[in-house]
Amino acid sequence: MSDAGNSGGRGAPWAENAFPAIGRLRRYRRADLAGDLPGGLIVGVMLVPQGMAYAMLAGLPPVVGLYASLAPLVVYAAFGSSRHLAVGPVAMLSLLVLANVAPLAEPGSAEYVQLVLLLTLLAGTVQFLMGLARMGFLANYLSHGVITGFTAGAAVLIGLSQLKHLLGVPLADGHSAPLLAWEASRRLSETHGVTLAIGLAGIGFLVMLQRRAPRFPAAMLFVVMATLLVYVLGLDRQGVAIVGEVPHGLPPLSLPHVDAAGAASLVPAVLTIVFIGFIESIAVAEHIATRERYRVDPNQELRALGLANLAAAFTSGYVVTGGFSRTAVNYRTGTRTPLASVVTAAVIGLTLLFLTPLFYYLPRAALGAIVIAAVAGLVDFGAARRTFRVKKGDGIALVLTFLLTLGAGPEAGVLGGVGLSLALYVWRTSHPRITELGYVESAGVFRSVERYPQARTSPGVLLVRIDAALYFANMGFVEQWLRNRLHADHDLQWVVVDMSGVNDVDATAAERLVTLMEDYRGHGVRFALAGTKSPVRNLLRRVDWPEHVGAPRNYASIQEALGAIGAAEPREG
Amino acid sequence: MSDAGNSGGRGAPWAENAFPAIGRLRRYRRADLAGDLPGGLIVGVMLVPQGMAYAMLAGLPPVVGLYASLAPLVVYAAFGSSRHLAVGPVAMLSLLVLANVAPLAEPGSAEYVQLVLLLTLLAGTVQFLMGLARMGFLANYLSHGVITGFTAGAAVLIGLSQLKHLLGVPLADGHSAPLLAWEASRRLSETHGVTLAIGLAGIGFLVMLQRRAPRFPAAMLFVVMATLLVYVLGLDRQGVAIVGEVPHGLPPLSLPHVDAAGAASLVPAVLTIVFIGFIESIAVAEHIATRERYRVDPNQELRALGLANLAAAFTSGYVVTGGFSRTAVNYRTGTRTPLASVVTAAVIGLTLLFLTPLFYYLPRAALGAIVIAAVAGLVDFGAARRTFRVKKGDGIALVLTFLLTLGAGPEAGVLGGVGLSLALYVWRTSHPRITELGYVESAGVFRSVERYPQARTSPGVLLVRIDAALYFANMGFVEQWLRNRLHADHDLQWVVVDMSGVNDVDATAAERLVTLMEDYRGHGVRFALAGTKSPVRNLLRRVDWPEHVGAPRNYASIQEALGAIGAAEPREG
Repeated sequence: MSDAGNSGGRGAPWAENAFPAIGRLRRYRRADLAGDLPGGLIVGVMLVPQGMAYAMLAGLPPVVGLYASLAPLVVYAAFGSSRHLAVGPVAMLSLLVLANVAPLAEPGSAEYVQLVLLLTLLAGTVQFLMGLARMGFLANYLSHGVITGFTAGAAVLIGLSQLKHLLGVPLADGHSAPLLAWEASRRLSETHGVTLAIGLAGIGFLVMLQRRAPRFPAAMLFVVMATLLVYVLGLDRQGVAIVGEVPHGLPPLSLPHVDAAGAASLVPAVLTIVFIGFIESIAVAEHIATRERYRVDPNQELRALGLANLAAAFTSGYVVTGGFSRTAVNYRTGTRTPLASVVTAAVIGLTLLFLTPLFYYLPRAALGAIVIAAVAGLVDFGAARRTFRVKKGDGIALVLTFLLTLGAGPEAGVLGGVGLSLALYVWRTSHPRITELGYVESAGVFRSVERYPQARTSPGVLLVRIDAALYFANMGFVEQWLRNRLHADHDLQWVVVDMSGVNDVDATAAERLVTLMEDYRGHGVRFALAGTKSPVRNLLRRVDWPEHVGAPRNYASIQEALGAIGAAEPREG
Repeated sequence: MSDAGNSGGRGAPWAENAFPAIGRLRRYRRADLAGDLPGGLIVGVMLVPQGMAYAMLAGLPPVVGLYASLAPLVVYAAFGSSRHLAVGPVAMLSLLVLANVAPLAEPGSAEYVQLVLLLTLLAGTVQFLMGLARMGFLANYLSHGVITGFTAGAAVLIGLSQLKHLLGVPLADGHSAPLLAWEASRRLSETHGVTLAIGLAGIGFLVMLQRRAPRFPAAMLFVVMATLLVYVLGLDRQGVAIVGEVPHGLPPLSLPHVDAAGAASLVPAVLTIVFIGFIESIAVAEHIATRERYRVDPNQELRALGLANLAAAFTSGYVVTGGFSRTAVNYRTGTRTPLASVVTAAVIGLTLLFLTPLFYYLPRAALGAIVIAAVAGLVDFGAARRTFRVKKGDGIALVLTFLLTLGAGPEAGVLGGVGLSLALYVWRTSHPRITELGYVESAGVFRSVERYPQARTSPGVLLVRIDAALYFANMGFVEQWLRNRLHADHDLQWVVVDMSGVNDVDATAAERLVTLMEDYRGHGVRFALAGTKSPVRNLLRRVDWPEHVGAPRNYASIQEALGAIGAAEPREG
């Protein structure tokens, strides 16, 4: 690695952070080119068919996918903080575009393209502003379970959306899997055999090669083969739908038409695209950055992706982000700097200038096959199984997110999933583990009396460990537990709480603790704390303790607490 | 105490739990009557004016407040699990009725009364069903800050709603404080002087006596005095609004008219009333139960309150719950069993049978004064100050809940407050405290190197303590922290994590831990854990650790971990 990321010492650090390309160009060495050139070329050859396929998935003319693969890549290379991220059209965002814009305009129509440009402009603006407002932390609120469930659901939706190209039957778009499947099954008899054959052959070929030789540009080879096949056998005259004329030349400049009504109707789409696009991108960027020991700045990433999307909006493209599979290839081919992305953009530019006439006979089913092969691996049963094994509740959240995405569409899936996983966390922390401890003489430690029945307890002393930050939602549970114990043991005189697991206490918990101790004091029961962390100790000092109760004494250890209260003290451990 | 709560041994425990009156009647002694009789009488004398005043606040004829104070009390006495709770109309629920039903029908009209009966029926049904479904735990999700802020906001709204009676000017109802205040100030010049004088005198008298002699039935005395004053001086002919004819006789049976459209429009009101009514009731019931060493069952409470509300719906009453101030009086006068509530109901019954004609000349301003005096103490500046001192964020949530309640009404206040306090908790736990530790030789313990600069660290070893359950929302923060440290220290070989504060790990955190360790392993950095709690240990065992990384070893203590990895080990503590 020739580049120490954003931490270069010379020049204004502010400028270098906002514009990482400055430092990179200054430090660029000839040796870096040996990695960047082949990496950029391979990704470019991957991106030509993928870009066209994803644009078709998004309900756009295929060439829009190529337009989106030129300027945004150069812009990201200039502003991005990741050195390996391959930006461009991706399947997930293309689905989100289709799901959100298709209800507003006929896919492929001029109006549709205009709305997509507006959507891209808004998404870019929001991302850029969120980056300025340092809101990159929002990405943290998506759990793996939600991502896995959502991705699997979206993959199935994407696959179903390509059935029309694969079967050669015009089917309505939509974002409810049961409806899509029902619609397809109803018209299965109209299937165009040759089209289906091309599609299935492509899926088999691509899935196989993807697994065995991930860096081999199989999609490009398949595109060439399928195109030749259609051209030579004249399959288009037998009803195989083809891409047709792909305009040539560099992307025309575009000025998105901003109207308030259109913008308002796109708000949910914009937010989902911003959120999902960022998650997909930052996850892979951070993973590689950690391996290569440099840092990506989530906020700089938001700004860079925002600028890339703005570039797409003004050069006839559509929404882009850092893609998972192309970034992996980019990294594995030994790419060293974002210059590789500039090389990729050059491949796209040359394709647009000279090669578009060659795509005339490219069958649409081939592009559909490329999409399906790309998302086939996204249904990750292994991850689901692992999640269930580690934590059942998280597994259930995963499955519910999957079902919600399938049934109610991607927006509902993401929002529902985030709500679900937060609710699950709150639920868990509101039922904390409370353990009654006793002294295990053989080991010299305090352990659960339930798991170690031989553990010794002192009469009149209840020794408990609470494993949770105390806050409003779990104090009721803690109080109920203590109340039950108080009710069961009328000779109780001391409650000693091992506070080592209490990471925090909020105002409600502090106040309820006062009331609890006051109520118990009326029955001659007193409280002592052991091992309270210093921030919690400081907080408890700021609480108003009534004089007749007094703040609970805190002891460094359970032993010390038991000694001080004069309990029949177990031997020192 | 002659009653051991629900834990009596004889008879079917199921029947006794569902119908606590059985056991209580069996165990009732003559000595108990000595406490129940005076307590029940005093609360009854308090309840007559309060019931009428709250009904007026709710936009209902005053007699409805008396109707609601008869059958529901007897029903709660039979089914409730608290022995001291005084059920009846309360100010907060009366405000909620007014705020929700006034937009649907003219307050005081027959249609309005019908809608309130329907609302009461629905609230009772929902409470009863929630009790059967054991959903009493829901009350735990309201923090003290939210309750304090909401109560204060509602108290101000209640006070403003009484301005029309106090000023003697007809003002529109509403639930936005700025609008109410603006409306009143605009028509201040129309104030009726004598009416205002009665109201202000009443507020002064009541607030003073409330503080000095809380058990003295000041409201009843004030009602008698104000009525006499109006009657003797003929003030009603000078424009002082009076209550007028109050129907006499026991409550007529009523059959709420259930229609789907009406029910649908009342859904938000029903949920808020169920929630707020339950919170107000359970808080005071549990407080007293803990002091008296018996248990209240939140789910039985929900069922009992539900049945009490159903009784109100069928006897021309309106929503009731356990009130804070009357319960406190009930408890302090030495009441021992729910028979006191039956005594209270008898007072109301006798009043309805024989005394209602006496209320003819009762000025409405006097009832307004009773309401204002009752809620004046609910704006608890002390609680707000304490909350700010203990935890600033909780204080801010309190103030925001207050403002939201004032500006957007009680529903928005409660919902917004709950959302806010949960968001605050998630925000806090997603930025956990991570402390780098070193060995403090003088004390023989490991402490923060930041606070103890003399703490010794071992070269190549990073020793950290994480004070939080690890979950999806905070792993990003933890990783960022570790990444920054890795970036700063290129000679790092071991990361030793003190896990004693890690109360839980979710599936996302477990998986990200694997990736993190894998990434770091590539740089020759390994992980060791110390003091992991056994549930977390068991969970980590179920995780798929890649072979070249392996599961991190867990050691009983930091010392042991440092010894095992062969770090320049600090002396044993």
